Amino acid sequence: MCPTRSSPARSPPPTWRNDVSDLQALARDLDAADPLRAHLAAFVEAPGVTAYLDGNSLGRPLRALPERLADFVQNDWGTRLIRSWDEQWMELPIELGDRIGRIALGAVAGQTVVADSTTVLLYKLMRAAVAARPERTEIVIEEGNFPTDRFVTEGVAAERGLTLRWISPDPIIGVQIADVEAAVTEQTALVVLSHVDYRSGALADMKAITDAAHAAGALILWDLCHSVGVIPTELDACGVDLAVGCTYKYLNGGPGSPAFAYVNARHHGVLRQPIQGWMGAGDVFAMGDAYAPASGIRQFISGTPPVLGMLAMQGMLDLIEAATIEAVREKSKTLTDLVVRAFDEELAPRGVRLLSSRDAAARGGHVTIGHPDFAEVTKSLWADGVIPDFRFPDGIRLGLSPLSTSHAEALSGVLAVRDALG
Amino acid sequence: MCPTRSSPARSPPPTWRNDVSDLQALARDLDAADPLRAHLAAFVEAPGVTAYLDGNSLGRPLRALPERLADFVQNDWGTRLIRSWDEQWMELPIELGDRIGRIALGAVAGQTVVADSTTVLLYKLMRAAVAARPERTEIVIEEGNFPTDRFVTEGVAAERGLTLRWISPDPIIGVQIADVEAAVTEQTALVVLSHVDYRSGALADMKAITDAAHAAGALILWDLCHSVGVIPTELDACGVDLAVGCTYKYLNGGPGSPAFAYVNARHHGVLRQPIQGWMGAGDVFAMGDAYAPASGIRQFISGTPPVLGMLAMQGMLDLIEAATIEAVREKSKTLTDLVVRAFDEELAPRGVRLLSSRDAAARGGHVTIGHPDFAEVTKSLWADGVIPDFRFPDGIRLGLSPLSTSHAEALSGVLAVRDALG
Repeated sequence: MCPTRSSPARSPPPTWRNDVSDLQALARDLDAADPLRAHLAAFVEAPGVTAYLDGNSLGRPLRALPERLADFVQNDWGTRLIRSWDEQWMELPIELGDRIGRIALGAVAGQTVVADSTTVLLYKLMRAAVAARPERTEIVIEEGNFPTDRFVTEGVAAERGLTLRWISPDPIIGVQIADVEAAVTEQTALVVLSHVDYRSGALADMKAITDAAHAAGALILWDLCHSVGVIPTELDACGVDLAVGCTYKYLNGGPGSPAFAYVNARHHGVLRQPIQGWMGAGDVFAMGDAYAPASGIRQFISGTPPVLGMLAMQGMLDLIEAATIEAVREKSKTLTDLVVRAFDEELAPRGVRLLSSRDAAARGGHVTIGHPDFAEVTKSLWADGVIPDFRFPDGIRLGLSPLSTSHAEALSGVLAVRDALG
Repeated sequence: MCPTRSSPARSPPPTWRNDVSDLQALARDLDAADPLRAHLAAFVEAPGVTAYLDGNSLGRPLRALPERLADFVQNDWGTRLIRSWDEQWMELPIELGDRIGRIALGAVAGQTVVADSTTVLLYKLMRAAVAARPERTEIVIEEGNFPTDRFVTEGVAAERGLTLRWISPDPIIGVQIADVEAAVTEQTALVVLSHVDYRSGALADMKAITDAAHAAGALILWDLCHSVGVIPTELDACGVDLAVGCTYKYLNGGPGSPAFAYVNARHHGVLRQPIQGWMGAGDVFAMGDAYAPASGIRQFISGTPPVLGMLAMQGMLDLIEAATIEAVREKSKTLTDLVVRAFDEELAPRGVRLLSSRDAAARGGHVTIGHPDFAEVTKSLWADGVIPDFRFPDGIRLGLSPLSTSHAEALSGVLAVRDALG
């Protein structure tokens, strides 16, 4: 066994040393066998950062991006100028939506569009959905859903005079079919759920839950923010009605890059979103007297598409397509399994709680752990270049983006948490 | 007199030659005396483009932008990673809004925010405004307002059960005080107008019209898309209630860069926008149970701010601040005056109509002309690297962004229109 290189003050006690060596050997083996390891070099290096564990909040940029942006500024924008709207930008929201649909969502073309923020798209789709079930009086939502989902739902319910029915599952297990079956009634217009819980990473059974909503005559809207790009979904095959997701997490679109909306083709021409803008009109440049919505998914666009914000994600979609989303998911499982094992050996004995499932099949791309000192621990880790996400009140979320994270990096993050606990 | 270098086939007939020389000499003199001419070199060169006359649809990028974007990707995003949200990005929508307010809008800090698209912000502010006048039943809007403004207004009116009252002014003169006085009643909740007409460039009297709306007890919402960055406004001094504007025209933010909203401080805490998102909540990371809006302008944010889309406009704001918005406006007048004079001498004799005011004080930054052949003419000009904007059914809009356009370039555009008419 090689001696560790840690300074004496930070070395773990002797009883842990063998375990850490085993873990480190395991991480090395997993990295050596990782079929996606070549992609690690595709991302911008971050001087001073030894472990980036927040790829599920903000994915890293690709090395090729500055050159792509410079080319865009010089040519598409700077030289083609306004002509680029005709030549490429008008179709970009739908072409890019189609690519996301094909590569990551199991959605055939013409149902996915890139636009706005997740929040604004949630609002549009919810308003469209409840208007399509005018005789029904309730929206079902989970108590632990991400705040913006809850806030938008509360707002839509208030303005449309609807009642909220709350599901309150165990946060580690997440929403189960029985929870939904118990919550939906013949008064349910819409069920709003996250595919992967933003806290625990609990992964919902999309097909069975969608069926349960439909059995009650309700529509379902899935938030895919924490699954798109790391877990393949089959929106078409599952019969999903509506979905939204963000592109700055596992799609590496950059801070605040636009979101996407999926509206199943069977609802086109029936569902109508409320923010009637020129870019969602049937003939954008007719400048007609009254709004007539475009047919198809284009109707869900309102204002001018945020072109600059759509560039970075294109390179990441190329990578995911080359790797395949299924292989990304497999690596996500080995990464999170390793973190859970390291938790058991290095963190559990120090009083840290596991706030995610032990079953990789029931878990998304992140693992959350809890300890009363984690607010302070996170500050200290960030200053040292180890960057997880702190979740109020005492959680640390380890978000492992498979294409940009090695097993060694994930393990070093867990060990840094251990060391920071003292 | 120097001979012209035009080929014989494209030379104007002899009767025009002296006039063109006079015009060209005038343009040269104006450029020589232009205190802002040094800024022309700040913009990306466009090989093959001899006259860009659509700066009011899409402003040109700055030469410094690719380097700025590369630095952002490498450092702010790639190295600081998620830490940049705490370090700078959370405040960026309001800091940038404050800068736009100070440099271009006559708005003190804390009332302007950058977010979403113009369309989405129109929707939010209109909904907030009509909810603040619940006893009133009408919205007043101009028939010739930009389609997205009309479409959003139609949608809001329909969903809130309100009636639209249409103003139908002469498009060249634009909305006058008397038009507004005649339209508003004690039932008017909101007046929605553009400061500069997107077709004719007619410039509205903001102060007098705002006073007329207020005299009837209505709120007013100004669309500044075609004035921000080229015409100074005094939103605070005029007592304006609400305003929106886009940043990809005279603020050169790039295609689809986010819009801004101004909400006068007297309405903070009273007006509430309907798209309740986590980024507009009082404590963003509390992840609390129920939505409680932030105080101040932050409440008008919904989703995650589009950071990448906020970068390009910062360089242009630097330039406008250095030049001063008043000097930009002065150059805008000399540019459009030159175009009107060239129209009189070169286009009017060929049957082209002037669709903008002759009075620079009553006109924004663009001049619109009409001719039945302009759809074909525009196609031919675009192919030749002369790029105005075509406006259905038969208009050409010459949009002259003062910091990136010389008088010689503006004149060459008019002469190219003449030549293309044959």
